[in-house]
Amino acid sequence: MSQTVTAAMVVIGDEILSGRTKDRNVGFVADYLTNLGIDLKEVRIVSDDQQDIVDAVNALRHRYTYVFTSGGIGPTHDDITAESVSAAFNLPCIHHPEAMALLEARYAEMDTEFTESRKRMARTTKGAELIENPVSVAPGFRIENVHVMAGVPKIMQAMMDSIAPTLKGGVKMISRTVDCPHGEGRIGEPLSTIQDANPHTMIGSYPRYVDGKYSTQIVVRGRDKDLVDAAHATVEAMVAEISS
Amino acid sequence: MSQTVTAAMVVIGDEILSGRTKDRNVGFVADYLTNLGIDLKEVRIVSDDQQDIVDAVNALRHRYTYVFTSGGIGPTHDDITAESVSAAFNLPCIHHPEAMALLEARYAEMDTEFTESRKRMARTTKGAELIENPVSVAPGFRIENVHVMAGVPKIMQAMMDSIAPTLKGGVKMISRTVDCPHGEGRIGEPLSTIQDANPHTMIGSYPRYVDGKYSTQIVVRGRDKDLVDAAHATVEAMVAEISS
Repeated sequence: MSQTVTAAMVVIGDEILSGRTKDRNVGFVADYLTNLGIDLKEVRIVSDDQQDIVDAVNALRHRYTYVFTSGGIGPTHDDITAESVSAAFNLPCIHHPEAMALLEARYAEMDTEFTESRKRMARTTKGAELIENPVSVAPGFRIENVHVMAGVPKIMQAMMDSIAPTLKGGVKMISRTVDCPHGEGRIGEPLSTIQDANPHTMIGSYPRYVDGKYSTQIVVRGRDKDLVDAAHATVEAMVAEISS
Repeated sequence: MSQTVTAAMVVIGDEILSGRTKDRNVGFVADYLTNLGIDLKEVRIVSDDQQDIVDAVNALRHRYTYVFTSGGIGPTHDDITAESVSAAFNLPCIHHPEAMALLEARYAEMDTEFTESRKRMARTTKGAELIENPVSVAPGFRIENVHVMAGVPKIMQAMMDSIAPTLKGGVKMISRTVDCPHGEGRIGEPLSTIQDANPHTMIGSYPRYVDGKYSTQIVVRGRDKDLVDAAHATVEAMVAEISS
């Protein structure tokens, strides 16, 4: 008999509780873990308050196999997740040498000053392992069973892809992307039909608005390469038909 | 100096944690309470498990001025919010006489049998006051500072309107509705522009798909009648322009 693998999520951020930003990470993580065969058992949304974060992380990390946090790892003063998670573990919060090197190289490449506030993005709990961020370099980190991720959905999602193969019963998630030159309004309905017809894949759409023009990045994820390829082909055909 | 009025929310339902249903209530309640001047401080999403619901309600009701729950008050076996909240208060869970009368009248009117499972929707904690449900009759209830509401967004929202005038510092929320004969895809962008231009109102859109046709109900809410009227007029003009 296989052991049930469980998880909890902590969403960190005043902007979610005030309503200014609408959370999109809970739904994504819920789908993602279900797809991996991991049971998401509880979610807490807490404010940018160290004690609240410490209490949530400590209540959940002993109770579930994994904890995932999102939010609060940026460069500003109210990004306090790294020190809060460190406090939960009663461990020092440090500038992780590997993260410092990654960010230093990144800012040198962009010919941008690597300021003290940008260095905040290299902070982790002492002893943590980095979680790769293929979108914007600044990494997340894992300490014991707690995974600390960004709040920006696209980055959080890429971090989940980095984490997935390391989880118990976790398998590599395959993802394929379609760049769609239309806004979500035009593709929402056909995309929903494709999702219904492809239940073993997760199809996400991420709107962009650049230079006065709407477009959408459509990402198809799943564990089975053939099913992902099939859904991806259907999405491509749909986009081509709308564009023609 | 006025006292800060705080709140927490408990979202109840396996379907949210599995990803099958995407929560839309947290964002709504966050906006709504911000508009009333009440600080939403914490949200917990828990499964359909009595102990988990009891733990969440008891952890939050002593800590914040108000607790709002959504979900788990329907007629099926997994709707266990009424008995769980009762257990949290160590009070009996009863069929509330007033709720029974409301539902009995409703089902008589519809010439539909008032079955045992439908009677489940009349359950409340003993001593609770009902929360009116103008959408589908089956009420929510309040016991001390805990407000038990439906999970269906449209019903939950109507219940918030019923509750608002009873809250400390709470004022009556004014709402006006526009029936729009187009899907969200066509009105999403102009509606977002109108929302930005009317920051003191909350504009929600609720898509419908009936007889193969998309339409949208647009609801403008706010505390100030003049501001709500102005935003409502702008929405009406936008819908008229698209329709012409």
